[in-house]
Order: sequence, then structure tokens, then C-alpha cells
Amino acid sequence: MAFLPSEVANLANSVCIVVDVLRASSTIVTLFERGCPRVLLAGSVSEGRRLAKEGGLLLAGERNGLPPVGFDLGNSPAELKGLDLATQVVVLTTSNGTAALRKVAGARAVLVGCFTNAEACCRAALELAHRTGADLIVVCAGRRGRFALDDASCAGFLAETIAGMEDGACVLTDAARGACRLWQGYGDAILAFQDSASGQRVLEIGYAEDLALCARTSVSAIVPTLAPGRPFRLVQWNGDQATGDHPGN
Amino acid sequence: MAFLPSEVANLANSVCIVVDVLRASSTIVTLFERGCPRVLLAGSVSEGRRLAKEGGLLLAGERNGLPPVGFDLGNSPAELKGLDLATQVVVLTTSNGTAALRKVAGARAVLVGCFTNAEACCRAALELAHRTGADLIVVCAGRRGRFALDDASCAGFLAETIAGMEDGACVLTDAARGACRLWQGYGDAILAFQDSASGQRVLEIGYAEDLALCARTSVSAIVPTLAPGRPFRLVQWNGDQATGDHPGN
Repeated sequence: MAFLPSEVANLANSVCIVVDVLRASSTIVTLFERGCPRVLLAGSVSEGRRLAKEGGLLLAGERNGLPPVGFDLGNSPAELKGLDLATQVVVLTTSNGTAALRKVAGARAVLVGCFTNAEACCRAALELAHRTGADLIVVCAGRRGRFALDDASCAGFLAETIAGMEDGACVLTDAARGACRLWQGYGDAILAFQDSASGQRVLEIGYAEDLALCARTSVSAIVPTLAPGRPFRLVQWNGDQATGDHPGN
Repeated sequence: MAFLPSEVANLANSVCIVVDVLRASSTIVTLFERGCPRVLLAGSVSEGRRLAKEGGLLLAGERNGLPPVGFDLGNSPAELKGLDLATQVVVLTTSNGTAALRKVAGARAVLVGCFTNAEACCRAALELAHRTGADLIVVCAGRRGRFALDDASCAGFLAETIAGMEDGACVLTDAARGACRLWQGYGDAILAFQDSASGQRVLEIGYAEDLALCARTSVSAIVPTLAPGRPFRLVQWNGDQATGDHPGN
């Protein structure tokens, strides 16, 4: 468990689940749900614009919660409802989530986790960790370089899910035990969201529906993962990537 | 609230309460309780040895919980019982606590906090923060650069105490709210200690009594603080330091 991406000590021997539950992780899962074949992670608004323009791709993301000028989409699961994104590659840049994914790109494997894909993501991460002998680390994106209550609570839920799947056979760090206890203190994703600065910002800009959508638990089997050898490209995990297979370009 | 010293963003405008509850903060409060006039924070075992030798001072501290060869004292409140340290300046070096204090030495003011001096420390910190217009930040020392459950729980207790003293008039960050909730999840310092890696290490090396001593709440009025202009020297807070007064050498 890392409450900030900078806390991950041994990337090369880690399977990371990156959590930016409000809203990048949840948006990414939704993009794949809508048929999007892959998501390119841009490091800045200008890089996003360039990548989208060069490739004729959809441009999505936010700064301070809202889509920058010229973006096709924001960073909102609610906004994606009913869209058909089959064949549409998406370029995404967000304030915290895409930055966190890029930061841990050197890990053995990187998965995107949130409440909506919790069970599938935890199962995939455990399989990868067992297969490679790597540590499993849930990495919170945080908010502006600081601890984020929404991410930490979701990370606690994921840690609890993982511990349950392992039947108590895994060793939890202080941070993982702390996150589990934090989650248990809320016991309800909406309550954790409402208590967090990120959740309050989402409400402030009028995206209340996103809180409800992001709070749903294990409703998706999609596990986005950084494509090996393509560190800033997310594809769907298919059970083979960790063996070195490179999914489609 | 910072779960690690490296997370403090704006030192110059911060009043910091540094928490290494197991055991450096609690030991430091106890040293002053025994009459020690000041504590010099050494950055390493060798610097500690040098400072103690040069000044003819008592040398205290630990590595991996135990006093290094040639040290006069460890890092244990239990060990200090019955000692009279009046006129005895102590050089202290510990794995996490003294390092954290040195790391935030550039703050507007730095206080040492733990369960035993909680109320006095929070009151002093609030007074300093109000007087200087600085932010009040509880800084966890952490363990080996990682989140420590014992420190975070104690920090939550301190944040709750501060919020209570302010009658809800202070703005809590996500991290402060998270720490409060973590503390509320335990509700008992001993339970938090037992769940933490630091607490388990203290038990492992046979210092169970320290857990009981460090779990006592607000039994001391002593607030150790870094002496202004003398960043690696702890003295007792007397209510004047923040105005630029330099306490005795």
C-alpha cells in the first residue's frame, strides 16, 4: 500500500494497482466498457492535444475537474453513458490518475483499480503477483501530491478484498492495515467520497451522478493494464501480459 | 497532517508537531520529565558518539530498537524510570524520530508530540499557529520511510484533540480526517500499537512496558520544541520561543 505514488520503493519487483477512484480509474474502466480498445496516457494537456491531433484520436481528461478547451470528453463516467467507443482510441490526461500511472510504469505490472472493477482487478493482481513472485502494492494517486481520502478508502477496500481472497495468507503492511481500518470506518463508498476533497470538488462542479457510479462495487470484469513495452498505453488485461506477450498496437 | 516528513509542503509557514510515538517522542518527553535541560538531535550514531564525547554528555538512542554499542541509554521511557537527569544534557539519535525532527527543522516552529503530552502539545501548537498565522501540521515520523500505524493513530488523536479545542473552527485536510477516522477505529492506543510494526518490534525486543507507558494520555505538561536558531536542539516550550526569544544555551 502506498498512499502516494512516490512511496513505492521497489517498482521493479511490484505489481501495482493504481487507484484514482474519483475519477480517473473509474473513467478508464468505463471507457473500456464502452468498447474503447486502448487508452493513451498523456503527461500534459499539450501532449494530449498533440497525440490526439496526430492520430485523429478522441481527447479526454480534466484539469481541476473540468475538461480543458478543445477536449472531446471530460473525466466522467456519467458523461460516457450510452457512448459507443468501439474502434475509438482515447487519449487521456488527468491531474492525478494518469500522472500516477505514468510514475509507476516501471513496475512488473500495472493495473487500474477502483470500486467498480474491484473483484476482477484484485484477482488479476494476485494472479500476476503469484506468477511473478512480485509484491502486490495498491498505489493511491492522491490529490496534488497529497493523501486523498477517497483513494485511500478505496485502496482499503481493495486490500481487504485481496486479504479475503488469500484467506489471510498475505502479509499486510502498516499502510495496508491502516487503509483497511479507514475503509471499515466508512463502510460505504459514498460516505468516504463525501468526506474527501475530491468528492466535494466533483459535487461542486455538478457531477453528483459520478459519485454514485464510482461507488458501485465489482460491477465490471474489466481490468485495464499498462501494455508491456508500451508504458503509457492501457489495454484490457487478458491473463497473458505478464508473460511478456505484447497486446495489439 | 503528513504521514511522512517528506510530505510537508510549506515548511516555512508551518507549525509542526512531530510524532514518533513508539518511541522517540515519548522518550523525549520523559527525558524532560526527568529533569534533562536539553536534548541534542544527532543525525547518525557516529555523530552522536562524537557530540557526547566532545561535550561529556549522556548518549541515548537506538538502531532497530536497541541501543548501539557504547550508548548510555536506549530509546525507552521504561528505562528512564527513577533516573535524575537534572543538569544532564542528552544526545539522542534514533532511526526515525530524530531524523524526522531534523528534516522539518526549517518550520516556523517544531514541537514533539505523543499521547503522553497530547493536550499540552496541542494547546501550545494552536497558540503558536494563531500567533504566527502559520498552518498547523501533525507530522508522522513513519518507519524506515514508510507509513507507520502507531504514528498515524496518535496523529489522529492529536488532530481530534486540536479540532475539539478549536470547536470545529479549523479546516481539516483529507489526511487529517483520515487519521482521525483511523484513530476512532482503534479508540485505544494499545490496540493501535499492537497492530503496528513498531509496536510488534518493541514487544519482540522485550520492552512491553514501553507500550503501556507510551499509551498514557495527557499525563505530562511538557512540550519539547526545537530551539529557534538552534535547529537540532530540543528545549522545553515556555510560551515565548515563537517570538524569537532564544532559550538558554
